[in-house]
Amino acid sequence: MNYSSILNKIHQQVTPMLGQGKVADYIPALANVDPNQFGMAITLNNGDFYGVGDYKQTFSIQSISKVFSFTLALREHKKKLYRRVWREPSGDPFNSLVQLEHEAGIPRNPFINAGAIVVCDSLISKSNNNEAAVNDILAFIHAISSDASIDTNKSVAESEMQHGFRNASLAHLMKSFGNLNNEVEEVLTAYFHQCSVEMTPLQLSRAFLYLANNGTDPISNKQFLTPGQAKRINALMLTCGHYDASGDFAFRVGLPGKSGVGGGIVAVIPGKMAIAVYSPGLNEFGNSLVGTKALELFTSFTGLSIF
Amino acid sequence: MNYSSILNKIHQQVTPMLGQGKVADYIPALANVDPNQFGMAITLNNGDFYGVGDYKQTFSIQSISKVFSFTLALREHKKKLYRRVWREPSGDPFNSLVQLEHEAGIPRNPFINAGAIVVCDSLISKSNNNEAAVNDILAFIHAISSDASIDTNKSVAESEMQHGFRNASLAHLMKSFGNLNNEVEEVLTAYFHQCSVEMTPLQLSRAFLYLANNGTDPISNKQFLTPGQAKRINALMLTCGHYDASGDFAFRVGLPGKSGVGGGIVAVIPGKMAIAVYSPGLNEFGNSLVGTKALELFTSFTGLSIF
Amino acid sequence: MNYSSILNKIHQQVTPMLGQGKVADYIPALANVDPNQFGMAITLNNGDFYGVGDYKQTFSIQSISKVFSFTLALREHKKKLYRRVWREPSGDPFNSLVQLEHEAGIPRNPFINAGAIVVCDSLISKSNNNEAAVNDILAFIHAISSDASIDTNKSVAESEMQHGFRNASLAHLMKSFGNLNNEVEEVLTAYFHQCSVEMTPLQLSRAFLYLANNGTDPISNKQFLTPGQAKRINALMLTCGHYDASGDFAFRVGLPGKSGVGGGIVAVIPGKMAIAVYSPGLNEFGNSLVGTKALELFTSFTGLSIF
Amino acid sequence: MNYSSILNKIHQQVTPMLGQGKVADYIPALANVDPNQFGMAITLNNGDFYGVGDYKQTFSIQSISKVFSFTLALREHKKKLYRRVWREPSGDPFNSLVQLEHEAGIPRNPFINAGAIVVCDSLISKSNNNEAAVNDILAFIHAISSDASIDTNKSVAESEMQHGFRNASLAHLMKSFGNLNNEVEEVLTAYFHQCSVEMTPLQLSRAFLYLANNGTDPISNKQFLTPGQAKRINALMLTCGHYDASGDFAFRVGLPGKSGVGGGIVAVIPGKMAIAVYSPGLNEFGNSLVGTKALELFTSFTGLSIF
Repeated sequence: MNYSSILNKIHQQVTPMLGQGKVADYIPALANVDPNQFGMAITLNNGDFYGVGDYKQTFSIQSISKVFSFTLALREHKKKLYRRVWREPSGDPFNSLVQLEHEAGIPRNPFINAGAIVVCDSLISKSNNNEAAVNDILAFIHAISSDASIDTNKSVAESEMQHGFRNASLAHLMKSFGNLNNEVEEVLTAYFHQCSVEMTPLQLSRAFLYLANNGTDPISNKQFLTPGQAKRINALMLTCGHYDASGDFAFRVGLPGKSGVGGGIVAVIPGKMAIAVYSPGLNEFGNSLVGTKALELFTSFTGLSIF
Repeated sequence: MNYSSILNKIHQQVTPMLGQGKVADYIPALANVDPNQFGMAITLNNGDFYGVGDYKQTFSIQSISKVFSFTLALREHKKKLYRRVWREPSGDPFNSLVQLEHEAGIPRNPFINAGAIVVCDSLISKSNNNEAAVNDILAFIHAISSDASIDTNKSVAESEMQHGFRNASLAHLMKSFGNLNNEVEEVLTAYFHQCSVEMTPLQLSRAFLYLANNGTDPISNKQFLTPGQAKRINALMLTCGHYDASGDFAFRVGLPGKSGVGGGIVAVIPGKMAIAVYSPGLNEFGNSLVGTKALELFTSFTGLSIF
Repeated sequence: MNYSSILNKIHQQVTPMLGQGKVADYIPALANVDPNQFGMAITLNNGDFYGVGDYKQTFSIQSISKVFSFTLALREHKKKLYRRVWREPSGDPFNSLVQLEHEAGIPRNPFINAGAIVVCDSLISKSNNNEAAVNDILAFIHAISSDASIDTNKSVAESEMQHGFRNASLAHLMKSFGNLNNEVEEVLTAYFHQCSVEMTPLQLSRAFLYLANNGTDPISNKQFLTPGQAKRINALMLTCGHYDASGDFAFRVGLPGKSGVGGGIVAVIPGKMAIAVYSPGLNEFGNSLVGTKALELFTSFTGLSIF
Repeated sequence: MNYSSILNKIHQQVTPMLGQGKVADYIPALANVDPNQFGMAITLNNGDFYGVGDYKQTFSIQSISKVFSFTLALREHKKKLYRRVWREPSGDPFNSLVQLEHEAGIPRNPFINAGAIVVCDSLISKSNNNEAAVNDILAFIHAISSDASIDTNKSVAESEMQHGFRNASLAHLMKSFGNLNNEVEEVLTAYFHQCSVEMTPLQLSRAFLYLANNGTDPISNKQFLTPGQAKRINALMLTCGHYDASGDFAFRVGLPGKSGVGGGIVAVIPGKMAIAVYSPGLNEFGNSLVGTKALELFTSFTGLSIF
């Protein structure tokens, strides 16, 4: 397949839509990005890669980082992790606090904020403190992407910390149920630093290849997960990867994926490739509006879908 | 692949588990089935089929029928249907009434009861009355399975009707929001008759082939849906097919599927086959306990999974 | 105190407000009333009465009837009644279905619709059928008011029945939990007939004297409740008598009372009198806007308040 | 009336019940009190007082302090305060977080924790910092009780702070909605110190006289509230003073009152007296089990009730 021409065709078709979404504005660092950016990258399991537009532009990966921290926690804690975080879709966001209340502080899945905070707590318990935990997450990202230049953005993390009252509310509620082992402030510090990691679409598509190849990076041949674990993370991304629009994403795109409020989305085609797209304007559900459209076009043009 | 031997191996492994689940007991017709039954059938896209155990035993397909009625409604109403029923997972069952209340009577997806009741209402509007609607659903099942012997069980339907207070509560709530066009009693009558359809695992695996082949039955070559529509129903089954255990099913089995409280589960491997399993003991989420295990073993043994 | 001049002063002050509220419009019978009506009546424990404006105008008492049916049920079932309906305020109306779901079909108090439906069910169980139950309620109203002319309005009741989907939803949900002993349709028929009773402000103020005099009508000297029961119904009216504005009513008016969507409110000053007001325009909580104001003025002008 | 003999009779009747309730055990300072304590005190508007049992025993007044802080905030902010906290009963505690979420961070009333935290925040805004706010609350308590010996218990406050994750969750949620003007930690520090105030039943009954006398202390003749404000706080105590058992308390006792998890309850008979009772064993709703019974007996024996 001629991926370059497909990417160009997508770029052309989405260009008129740029600027339609709404850039995340709850912190200055995200509010000030240029809303008209668009970049898309593919990395195949054989290492070939393709890009279009701003595919080498770094951006804040935000919730996409939850896949990395969850992978790391799963490697460490294995099935025991599922005692502290479930794997079911969460329903509407309105529901998040009442769900935690009703279900004794156990979040529905690792990709909603409450779940990712629990995952972060489990990594701090392993790494001893929040800085070490963030360093371990970064080291893991370096390993899966074979790229040691990837880093957090401390000013973004601090800015989030100052506006993170809702996440603090979730964390304290879980703490009241005994589902956080470390201090709330320490956990949130690690969590916000993890979310502040910056990557390019190209780096992201490269980093997710281990999930397109049964847990083993097909280029470096390093194994990061068992095939069963990798399959399960893909299943989790499909059912829970896009907040309250996970069903819609599965419906329209038909691929396991994870989005972030920074405007990035990454998707996996098992056995073949990973695809990352970046465009900061968000739709009503907090997912990249143009990014979702671009991935929908990609599966239309290529016929590649897991369904 | 030697499907016969795989089915036998599965049968052998699950036999010690038979009787562990809890048979649905809210109506006598379901409560009185033998809890130790187990049958599993595969039909390949080329028409070859395999079966083990009670694979020719008819049982009450219950919620599996929602896939048939939804397909029929989608053919008739197309995208307009999505104004009345969404396509997002629903979160925990506790949530069902409050979700309808909060979201103005629009159910989250067509596979929860509220959604299937709306779908049924849309079919009555097309067919003129509830009997005609049920006949249309039956005719559709006959067409996709090339088997005109399949029928409803009227005594099961009537028994459900007499105990269906919770469904009546959901239906009246949606009616109060204007999301039912026909009389509540008429809609529920059609709904309970639709759920009372009886099929064997073999018939079910045959009937679902259109979803394993982009909307066209690979044996009769009749097209029932566009490829896009078929892909989307598969996505819906993956994210919403198993009540509040949809995430767990995706996680453990990794296939689009739909379960029913009668003990049946059907799953689709796009491009390859459909698989149906029957065992009436249910797990805590209302899905066949042994059936889920059997499908998990099937994807383990064959390596077939969409992820 | 010169009650006539106080009533006149109130009438004068509220006249400019007439027409501000919104008349209940969910059934034609209520929607078509003249929004500018205002009537207020006082009956003292010694039998003296005073009225102003449309105080001899009959109107649909609607939820005010719940006090009568609850009194009757309490006489019959005594403390056992509290196993089926509690006596706590209900919080916001959004909450009503989820509360029933969460608390196994037991309504929070007898003055929300769900609670009044349970009370009605308990009266049918006593009276044998729904018509007899309504007749018993009417007979009770005749007894406490010494006025046999009071009647239901059948066309209002039937009109409510045709639009009562939300009440039907509540009733079926309670039935699913086993908290209704009779058929849902029969219970709702009785309930809607009970709510359709028509009275004048003067008749209402007369009828409530038994609650202003420890359970015994001070004029006829007939005892309808024990002093303890009467005190408790007053407490219930204070905490639960005005839907989600019960707190606000206690706060502003400071008297036990009960309102109805027909525009009536009745209040009790223990040891002294009962007061009824009618004005069909409702505020955002479904209580008579001008009626609430009139009662607030009454307690201001007279200094009479239980606090 | 012979209040001494009534108090003795009550003491006698409740003695066999001592030890039945469950002492609050979420912090050591409360868990370690002797569960068999019982004290009750009455102060009449003319200054006469009566006591029985441990009526001179100090205990942690906890939520009873919310009446003092609310009075102070109402004096300062007047009606503006009601933009930030409502005056409706809250329904069941399960509901607290979802209510705040659904209603944009505005608590239902000043006597649930969320409401009292907002009140505390409003006092800090007035007093400049949390220490000054607590000092102002203490000064107010000294003024209304004519007793400058009353103080907070710093070790109780600090212990609460270390276990107050649920309150921190509520506070952060309100902060995320913009309904807290000061830092969460500062507000919680003031809140927990306010709750740690220690008083005896006798001091409490003395302190509440301003609410039994239209806002003016009948002994010192100092006015603390207008009559309308005092009446409204009494209405609020009646509808919201006892968590999710407010309706039950109104029903059984029939007096405005406020309870605390330390085992205290105080009640007001407008125009006559204030009554305080202390017994640390709590019922299932978190209110003093024996204290509630003692007040119920008091209204039975004396016939004093607002209804």
